[in-house]
Amino acid sequence: MSARILIIGAGRSSSALINYCFEKSEALGWTVTVADADPAAAAAKVNGHPRGNTAWLDVTKTNDRRDLISRADIVISLLPAHLHIEVAQDCIRLKKHLITASYVSQELYRLGDEARDRELIFMGEMGLDPGVDHMVAMQRINAIRELGGKITAFRSFTGGLIAPESNDNPWGYKFTWNPRNVVLAGQGTTQYLKDGKLKFLPYQRVFSRTWPVHIEGFGDFEAYANRDSLLYRKRYGLEAIPTILRGTIRYPGYCEAWSALVKIGLTNADFPILDSIKITYHEFMEALAPSGSGSVKDRIAQMLDIPTDGPVMKRLVWLGLFRKKRIRMRDATPALILEQLLLTKWKLKPDDKDLIVMQHLIDYELDGKTYRDVADLTMVGQDAEDTAMARLVGLPMGIFARLISEGKIAATGVHIPTMKEVYEPVLKEMEDYGMRITHRTDELTD
Amino acid sequence: MSARILIIGAGRSSSALINYCFEKSEALGWTVTVADADPAAAAAKVNGHPRGNTAWLDVTKTNDRRDLISRADIVISLLPAHLHIEVAQDCIRLKKHLITASYVSQELYRLGDEARDRELIFMGEMGLDPGVDHMVAMQRINAIRELGGKITAFRSFTGGLIAPESNDNPWGYKFTWNPRNVVLAGQGTTQYLKDGKLKFLPYQRVFSRTWPVHIEGFGDFEAYANRDSLLYRKRYGLEAIPTILRGTIRYPGYCEAWSALVKIGLTNADFPILDSIKITYHEFMEALAPSGSGSVKDRIAQMLDIPTDGPVMKRLVWLGLFRKKRIRMRDATPALILEQLLLTKWKLKPDDKDLIVMQHLIDYELDGKTYRDVADLTMVGQDAEDTAMARLVGLPMGIFARLISEGKIAATGVHIPTMKEVYEPVLKEMEDYGMRITHRTDELTD
Repeated sequence: MSARILIIGAGRSSSALINYCFEKSEALGWTVTVADADPAAAAAKVNGHPRGNTAWLDVTKTNDRRDLISRADIVISLLPAHLHIEVAQDCIRLKKHLITASYVSQELYRLGDEARDRELIFMGEMGLDPGVDHMVAMQRINAIRELGGKITAFRSFTGGLIAPESNDNPWGYKFTWNPRNVVLAGQGTTQYLKDGKLKFLPYQRVFSRTWPVHIEGFGDFEAYANRDSLLYRKRYGLEAIPTILRGTIRYPGYCEAWSALVKIGLTNADFPILDSIKITYHEFMEALAPSGSGSVKDRIAQMLDIPTDGPVMKRLVWLGLFRKKRIRMRDATPALILEQLLLTKWKLKPDDKDLIVMQHLIDYELDGKTYRDVADLTMVGQDAEDTAMARLVGLPMGIFARLISEGKIAATGVHIPTMKEVYEPVLKEMEDYGMRITHRTDELTD
Repeated sequence: MSARILIIGAGRSSSALINYCFEKSEALGWTVTVADADPAAAAAKVNGHPRGNTAWLDVTKTNDRRDLISRADIVISLLPAHLHIEVAQDCIRLKKHLITASYVSQELYRLGDEARDRELIFMGEMGLDPGVDHMVAMQRINAIRELGGKITAFRSFTGGLIAPESNDNPWGYKFTWNPRNVVLAGQGTTQYLKDGKLKFLPYQRVFSRTWPVHIEGFGDFEAYANRDSLLYRKRYGLEAIPTILRGTIRYPGYCEAWSALVKIGLTNADFPILDSIKITYHEFMEALAPSGSGSVKDRIAQMLDIPTDGPVMKRLVWLGLFRKKRIRMRDATPALILEQLLLTKWKLKPDDKDLIVMQHLIDYELDGKTYRDVADLTMVGQDAEDTAMARLVGLPMGIFARLISEGKIAATGVHIPTMKEVYEPVLKEMEDYGMRITHRTDELTD
């Protein structure tokens, strides 16, 4: 049962996972090696634990990487998604299990047969979203199927937010995850399925089409649609479902204000602003505002067809977009200028608690009646270091490593966590770490 | 003085150029070889002319291409822009002059020293836009400089439209040029300079910010800003100019209706519509419309905040976007679906005449007063084959070949037509082919 765990990557979001592994290491007989390009970062996470080791690793150096992997039993990769494939190929060659929280690429899926031949499990999308969302979805879908229900609509919403007690800005948002992804969210076209028909939202309309979400104990939120709601139809066994929607949860008002940023052009990432090194935020907004009389702020409000002193403009002003302060970035795109500004405005304070909310709404027919299965998942973080986000992303990988190590996983090949042998124990153990799932069934009448 | 002219490419837009070359061939002692991947197309253009030859050429075959170029004195390339560079390298090696109507790439500019060393001229952007626009701009700029005027604003607008007598659709537009470029126009971010300040328009606002353009004898038009108005500041010698704008002319109403297509999402080229093979245009619009009561048309109008029976919706309806007719394209993007629809709706009829309009507005100060120099260029085509577009794109290249052949070009290296020795004779001769330029100066008072 003893096992050698190798964690590649000791970045910001790795603490919850690393702590879990050390916590279980005595009982499971684990040794835990943390490898990073920055040996000091790895050493800080290991912090002299008797069952811990630190390794310096430049993942692009094939021999070093293979040497390290050869001395492990289970590899957990926290590398950026595009670097997983070489680690996965090494794991095939050296016969090691692999766990990641990233989206599983087609390239990785193609290693499935080889992994199966060698009796290995490669588990991807083992984080929060993707990850816990798959687990809750499959738990509810399978429960409804066991009742004999016929599923007619599937809606899944997730948000990484700030807890009400730490929510002290008009956006109701602070960064607990990759800021770049927040700034570029929704770019491209969004698709979902409603009553058997495909629906499309071009980028400029994504944030103005929202769905209300009520989470018991936390109140009202809103959600915008994710880029491709159709992605998991097959993996969830919902190929023929007429309505499917996946979305991202925000506090009310966020989406309308973000939509204003999109309309102004502030999320554009294709185009450098040639004089961004020498102009102020105010001059930058002037460059994006229509000409005419009145202040820049007035003209922006007029262009957006909203009141100058209304809630949307208040949020824009709060960001400092109209301040006569130098941007000081060279040839930066609007998206990069916005991201830098948000990094200071949406930064967690040391005592801030974050909040994860997730809701699954599954409609089904049973004995001539229609029901809605509602599953709410919530978790509040401890502080800016020990966030709900880091726990929900990191712990599922640690728990899954435990399941492998205890011989409780029969599956082999490349997977995402849709199997009962995975989601039942993982969701259960997550409750020990502060995650809450509540569940109810409403009869739908109309 | 005799010369061997090689024209590579015998596509739709080559006739005016080829006819010009044959027309001049006797007097200039030219032989004219037309090469194309389709020998029948080349033969049709040569049409047995005693001074003509036809060549079959696959331009990717280096030896064939060099063999043909080695037997010419002046090469005119009508190839797609990305194929020019290899022809240009051959021209360096084999010591041949080169003329194209395409934008000059950085790669091509880098051949400048070698071309100069070998006493060759490589002339790019020798069409309409880019081409004739440079020539008119430099003629006016130099005339103002000779007066001693100080230029404070430069605005240049060009449109390839349909002549009033053939304008029988509500858009005032038919295709006389690459349809794909019309559908994707404005994508990315647009920049221009106004009163010393950079101004930006994100794609979703390009067509809702228009400038009025009045062309004497043709009436009122509107223009939207081109992607990068700053491109030619240096080449025009206007580095320090506070206001510079380049735009595209359309009949009034076009831009507002096109802006509606952008908002609906119909110009999106990143995203395939998965069921486009089986749905109708009406169902496609339903997929893009907000949910709710009322017809798809009503809901689209409501989303755009315009009246259902107003001029914009009339234009959309006229395109057939709400018809219950199958799209019949597999996994097509919205932009491709729109392009296919426009190809049938905006097709020139055999007797249709096209119209080119161009306006340059140059403000300057002289002796304490401010003036506006206004130069209007117009040309009406003969019919759907002999278009003003084809003449204005093709003839400048033919005339320039004549100038080289007559020893009238002293310049060597890589150029665009900003030099007096080029623009004066070219613009003058173009008048023999139906192009009109009128010019006036207004004093500005305010």
